[in-house]
Amino acid sequence: MVMMDKLFAEFLGTFWLVLCGCGSAILAAQFGGDGNPLGIGLLGVSLAFGLAVLTGAYAFGHLSGAHFNPAVSVGLWVGGRFPGRLVLPYMLVQVAGATCAGYLLTVIASGAPYFTIDPFAAGALASNGYGVMSPGGYSLETAFLVEMVLTAFFVIVIMGVTDRRAPAGFAPIAIGLALTLIHLVGIPVTNTSVNPARSTGVALFAHYTALHQLWLFWLAPLLGGAAGGIVYSVLGKDRSRGW
Amino acid sequence: MVMMDKLFAEFLGTFWLVLCGCGSAILAAQFGGDGNPLGIGLLGVSLAFGLAVLTGAYAFGHLSGAHFNPAVSVGLWVGGRFPGRLVLPYMLVQVAGATCAGYLLTVIASGAPYFTIDPFAAGALASNGYGVMSPGGYSLETAFLVEMVLTAFFVIVIMGVTDRRAPAGFAPIAIGLALTLIHLVGIPVTNTSVNPARSTGVALFAHYTALHQLWLFWLAPLLGGAAGGIVYSVLGKDRSRGW
Amino acid sequence: MVMMDKLFAEFLGTFWLVLCGCGSAILAAQFGGDGNPLGIGLLGVSLAFGLAVLTGAYAFGHLSGAHFNPAVSVGLWVGGRFPGRLVLPYMLVQVAGATCAGYLLTVIASGAPYFTIDPFAAGALASNGYGVMSPGGYSLETAFLVEMVLTAFFVIVIMGVTDRRAPAGFAPIAIGLALTLIHLVGIPVTNTSVNPARSTGVALFAHYTALHQLWLFWLAPLLGGAAGGIVYSVLGKDRSRGW
Amino acid sequence: MVMMDKLFAEFLGTFWLVLCGCGSAILAAQFGGDGNPLGIGLLGVSLAFGLAVLTGAYAFGHLSGAHFNPAVSVGLWVGGRFPGRLVLPYMLVQVAGATCAGYLLTVIASGAPYFTIDPFAAGALASNGYGVMSPGGYSLETAFLVEMVLTAFFVIVIMGVTDRRAPAGFAPIAIGLALTLIHLVGIPVTNTSVNPARSTGVALFAHYTALHQLWLFWLAPLLGGAAGGIVYSVLGKDRSRGW
Repeated sequence: MVMMDKLFAEFLGTFWLVLCGCGSAILAAQFGGDGNPLGIGLLGVSLAFGLAVLTGAYAFGHLSGAHFNPAVSVGLWVGGRFPGRLVLPYMLVQVAGATCAGYLLTVIASGAPYFTIDPFAAGALASNGYGVMSPGGYSLETAFLVEMVLTAFFVIVIMGVTDRRAPAGFAPIAIGLALTLIHLVGIPVTNTSVNPARSTGVALFAHYTALHQLWLFWLAPLLGGAAGGIVYSVLGKDRSRGW
Repeated sequence: MVMMDKLFAEFLGTFWLVLCGCGSAILAAQFGGDGNPLGIGLLGVSLAFGLAVLTGAYAFGHLSGAHFNPAVSVGLWVGGRFPGRLVLPYMLVQVAGATCAGYLLTVIASGAPYFTIDPFAAGALASNGYGVMSPGGYSLETAFLVEMVLTAFFVIVIMGVTDRRAPAGFAPIAIGLALTLIHLVGIPVTNTSVNPARSTGVALFAHYTALHQLWLFWLAPLLGGAAGGIVYSVLGKDRSRGW
Repeated sequence: MVMMDKLFAEFLGTFWLVLCGCGSAILAAQFGGDGNPLGIGLLGVSLAFGLAVLTGAYAFGHLSGAHFNPAVSVGLWVGGRFPGRLVLPYMLVQVAGATCAGYLLTVIASGAPYFTIDPFAAGALASNGYGVMSPGGYSLETAFLVEMVLTAFFVIVIMGVTDRRAPAGFAPIAIGLALTLIHLVGIPVTNTSVNPARSTGVALFAHYTALHQLWLFWLAPLLGGAAGGIVYSVLGKDRSRGW
Repeated sequence: MVMMDKLFAEFLGTFWLVLCGCGSAILAAQFGGDGNPLGIGLLGVSLAFGLAVLTGAYAFGHLSGAHFNPAVSVGLWVGGRFPGRLVLPYMLVQVAGATCAGYLLTVIASGAPYFTIDPFAAGALASNGYGVMSPGGYSLETAFLVEMVLTAFFVIVIMGVTDRRAPAGFAPIAIGLALTLIHLVGIPVTNTSVNPARSTGVALFAHYTALHQLWLFWLAPLLGGAAGGIVYSVLGKDRSRGW
């Protein structure tokens, strides 16, 4: 059944996104210890999130559209590109996939005798946060603003590159690298979410403060995604006209 | 109206370029403090500028041509690829977009209690500069030369990859990564502009010395862009002939 | 003869993969000494493995399908994309190519008077390992789990991007960058294999413990590859139907 | 005249390659001083060389074929892809372009009051070398072997990705990233040449030892390029037959 295929693809893609994006942050960002340049740092983590979407979108795009992100599903629905009846099912399997990946990451991380995650540290287990849980100590208001603006532009880019006037086949490259770019800017502020499923998937296994702050990483990305959907549908409104 | 769409797309694209390019430099380049390899460094900032153009060009290229840069608009006009009557409107919205992004970045940066920008430091708030405001202390003459040569090649590459004989659809990849490449070379010299709008957008909020030096980051890129437009139109002159 | 061309292409491609992937780890990862940020680190090594496959797949894909990896050959066979009678010949030349590259790397490494490989060190000569031979000290069980899951997803991505409904021509980009992504996550755990030929090629010249642990880097990737082949062939089963 | 266009394009492309590839090494690799992670390191330099070819090949490929490298011109000639009467003219303008860029880099580098190049240091001014002039102290024999093997594979990849059976349009991505990959492996050994023009362009302005060692960076790449041309033309010989 096509519907099951779509949901299975979204499940796998979101699993892959959290496994590799958050996994690279947890396992490899500071490999060798704090201050060791062997680790992949914020640049490597940013690449990992983007490449997870790039590869997942080429692998699953023809099956489900490759959202892997509730804010994208909502944004595309608001922008008139995605049927409303699929929004909730997509969101459910996205959260399920992210949660399975979050659980697997806790299992993997516990496989190293001297690997420890300080659950009180900002960004522990790649969780998103503001205030004391922001990697750079950014305030709630700043975190909200950054998540909303970046998610809005993420949806604008997605709608632009999948516009029928844009060159075909390149969308996964542009969308994946847009997510890399968003992480290059946003990690210091919130550890970068722009994706409520990704935030939920690891918050469930991190310190309870991450769960307490989870509302922001649903509200701001969903609002931003919807705003992006509106902006692009206004901007690109003439796509079926000839002038 | 198509004209408004074009200008709105240029506004958004230049906003995106400055938000992410300069934003990554301000927020993430030295994350964790001076000498901490977690930060994305000059390599991460170079990637951010390039990916902003790559993603923006795929998202907005079919709407406005995706210049996001007065030197590119001028270069393409001189090279016979862009109508002269659009140059000034494009430049105005490019500067407006860059300025809005520059303002937003000052708001974001002020959201971290212990985040401080030393406005007297070379390159503060990702501003461009020469002499004492050059990241590596390079002289005015060197800065002028580097900005002019790099902008000229940027326009040559843009005209080459959008030549009708080049493979279609790949232009945003080549153009974005050309900007990454230009930053890999130029950041130590001037913090890399090759884009008067980008320079203006952050100079307005940085130390007044950045504003005093802003003339160079208009003059050198515009001259370079025009030179690039001339060089490629001579080089590729036979594109409509068969031999 | 086409069969010889296929085998020669697989030999060359696997040679290239080990020469550049493992070579970058041995020669350049820690260039300048431990803690020197000039070295390319885990991020550079991850890119090298991915770019070796990306470039090899564009260069040899039309000749042999560009597997360069026994787990991929097995996974594609299980997934119904590769004839069973070619699996063993492919595996043999893949191991031969990897072994020649491993030997060449020992020759190159011995060309620097003060270059030394501590054969007892975890990951020496880019070998894969678990327990005391894992770069991050991860247990056998964790290593097995990680290698199996990552190989399964690698094969799923390969089958997805070469599905006839995916955009043509982009597969080498997605596959190569998927391997980069896998390394961004897995190097701390096992030095990342997901490829029994690559593991064998360097284990033969490293400490005997690497040889003793080699079974895991055959068993886990082959099981994972087969699982991936099954998962995608279920997921994408409707590819020839219209709904 | 088409011939002049070809030569002008090769001149510009090789200028661009040396300006950005060697320029990034000279100006940005160790920015902020030895041990400062702000600098782009070997990874950034490797990317710069590759992106210079990627962008140059998209910009000039339709004009000249985008060799930018005498070893490539020779390799393609031996492999039957390039007319012999053009080899010498191409080589001349390639060396001229590289030399102009090398000169410009010495001018730029001298524009920083406290910028100094120790001409006796291995790899100074991005020059290539072996023995005492090898960044990692590798011997003459190792340097020769590495340059020859890497150039051979570079030409094999170029011939593979421009084979008529490979997907069209992607060649510049694969070729550029192959050069990045080659640098990720080879910089510690010889600072990576695989390109006699690039070596000549900077050796002329570096310490006389670099000039004394220049013969190797002509001989090994030319032999390797020719070997690569032979290998691929044997491997891909059946490209016009149906079996």
